Amino acid sequence: MHSPNPQSAIRNPQSPIPDPHSPAPLFLRAANGEATERPPVWLMRQAGRILPQYRALRSKFPDFKAFVKTPEAAAEATIQPVDELGVDAAIVFSDILVVPEAMGLDYEMVEAKGPRFPKVIENQNDVAGLISGVMAAERLAYVYEALRITKRELAGRVPLLGFAGAPWTILAYMVEGSGSKTFSKARRMLYAEPELAHALLQKITDTTIQYLKNQVTAGADLVQIFDSWAGELPPEHYRVFAVPYLGQICEALPEVPKTIFAKGAWFALEDLANLPCQVLGLDWNITPEFGKKSSGGRKVLQGNLDPCALYADTKSIEKETFAMIRAFGGHHIANLGHGVYPDTPLDGVRAFVEAVKSFRWEL
Amino acid sequence: MHSPNPQSAIRNPQSPIPDPHSPAPLFLRAANGEATERPPVWLMRQAGRILPQYRALRSKFPDFKAFVKTPEAAAEATIQPVDELGVDAAIVFSDILVVPEAMGLDYEMVEAKGPRFPKVIENQNDVAGLISGVMAAERLAYVYEALRITKRELAGRVPLLGFAGAPWTILAYMVEGSGSKTFSKARRMLYAEPELAHALLQKITDTTIQYLKNQVTAGADLVQIFDSWAGELPPEHYRVFAVPYLGQICEALPEVPKTIFAKGAWFALEDLANLPCQVLGLDWNITPEFGKKSSGGRKVLQGNLDPCALYADTKSIEKETFAMIRAFGGHHIANLGHGVYPDTPLDGVRAFVEAVKSFRWEL
Repeated sequence: MHSPNPQSAIRNPQSPIPDPHSPAPLFLRAANGEATERPPVWLMRQAGRILPQYRALRSKFPDFKAFVKTPEAAAEATIQPVDELGVDAAIVFSDILVVPEAMGLDYEMVEAKGPRFPKVIENQNDVAGLISGVMAAERLAYVYEALRITKRELAGRVPLLGFAGAPWTILAYMVEGSGSKTFSKARRMLYAEPELAHALLQKITDTTIQYLKNQVTAGADLVQIFDSWAGELPPEHYRVFAVPYLGQICEALPEVPKTIFAKGAWFALEDLANLPCQVLGLDWNITPEFGKKSSGGRKVLQGNLDPCALYADTKSIEKETFAMIRAFGGHHIANLGHGVYPDTPLDGVRAFVEAVKSFRWEL
Repeated sequence: MHSPNPQSAIRNPQSPIPDPHSPAPLFLRAANGEATERPPVWLMRQAGRILPQYRALRSKFPDFKAFVKTPEAAAEATIQPVDELGVDAAIVFSDILVVPEAMGLDYEMVEAKGPRFPKVIENQNDVAGLISGVMAAERLAYVYEALRITKRELAGRVPLLGFAGAPWTILAYMVEGSGSKTFSKARRMLYAEPELAHALLQKITDTTIQYLKNQVTAGADLVQIFDSWAGELPPEHYRVFAVPYLGQICEALPEVPKTIFAKGAWFALEDLANLPCQVLGLDWNITPEFGKKSSGGRKVLQGNLDPCALYADTKSIEKETFAMIRAFGGHHIANLGHGVYPDTPLDGVRAFVEAVKSFRWEL
């Protein structure tokens, strides 16, 4: 029903010598800032519980972590939405918390509650005891293997995204020890022990750089950095404790397009637009107009339909999706403004993907 | 240690015929847009767990709701921070969820987890079955009694704030049934059943108006409306499902200054600045500059120090507080950008209050 061949219909009038026999995939073209006939489309958390195939696969494992650490299964989960929904990109099935684990901070995933770290980072000794950089990254061989298998199985159908959590978000979990309504323990560190926070952020950054480099070596065509708790910080703290580390990561990965999705950080878009990344993800609070203005038209923007829009009927979803695409007006990758909610009806997800795929700009 | 007599030092050069014998309280002057020698200061959740006196009082009750429903105790909790911290305003100790309860939707407060509604609003029959307006508001006599006692006991030391939840936030609880990371059930209603949502919002609004009118009759000098989940909505939904109902409330209460605190709704400040309220509360994501620009200088701004700033040492708190006051540059009520976190050291809270109280503008 969905042809996994999104590039077939693409013309790119900005490219003077198009090669019709081997056009770059739509997603890569869009991420690189080329004009495209329509925006490419994928969904954050598309490899997940919205798909019956995923739930069947998940049920074979005693827990989430065993699933994540089985490369064949992770690859299968990664490819499922490409097959089932016809999205324009695959994103490797994994979790941002594999990084703190590789650094020596084990976590458990508590069903229906989320992650929990039995031990948290409290002082300089704790930070000093962490593994980082190459040594930490080499503990994540199972992710690279999942990428290699996925790449082979995809056989060029769509580009493959790697990803990691942003340093601030990873620090937030390592200090807080779990999800939180306020992340006040983690935020407290930024006020009470800023140097400790910087030391930890640097270790996370070193690890993340090597982790993403390895992902690229294993087949990731692009990478996305998720700063899920960006919106918890005051603007000045985001400037001091988040942006510079994101900058280090972007600079260390010149070989692939990079997307930064800093949820809730509407106030930081101008700073993020100065980083050497290609794409900025926007949540559903941000109007396309605000996103374009704040980023000065220098970035491709990704997003940002409210995930709840997919609970409505097909006609409404189509209308909302078209309105969003027109409001972005190009240089846009269609997505939701957050990960798709697990209870979203599959028909709603399909309606969104199909609406984007039926859209055409007059180029 | 703290004189509960903040108005004593106030000169108001904008008032041509000041009456030194009965100046209006600092907080009321500031809320009414007058220039003041320093900003008044209070903290959201100041009547709460940061105070040992509160914890002692709380321990006398089997549960939170029994506490809230005992007017003498609520009045005592309301006055504690005035005595102990020397803040410039008291806010009646209560909970925004007394409104849905009065409308017929009972809730329980689960210790360390938050509120839970055994029954939620799902359809037209559920909405039709709700009590609203005068009949619902008269079930809240215990709040009015708490206000009357407080007013008497305060004996004019500081103004008394009444409050209520904003209609969208109350709907969110009534539909979701509890706190939530996403409020996706409530947000789903706005997409899937907008007319049902409007019917519910109107009933909540009618009740809230009467509830606040009764609070004013009972002694509230000002009122604040808390839209705690404002930031969950996309801008267009906030414009359609939140702002008009806030407008109805503001228009129905011409007799007192009104503050709207729409947490996370940076994108709605321009719309909120058009409402007939006097004060807009800002969370800690919003820079004073952005707040002033968005509200077009037409509102007094309240906030917005990061609650986590109070975990730092006294010197840092003082520095951050002064920087905030200077950045607002007047027409400002000093507060945090969110309710004070329960584990904040009392010394941190004191340092904040004292820093504000030591500040002087050259008028």
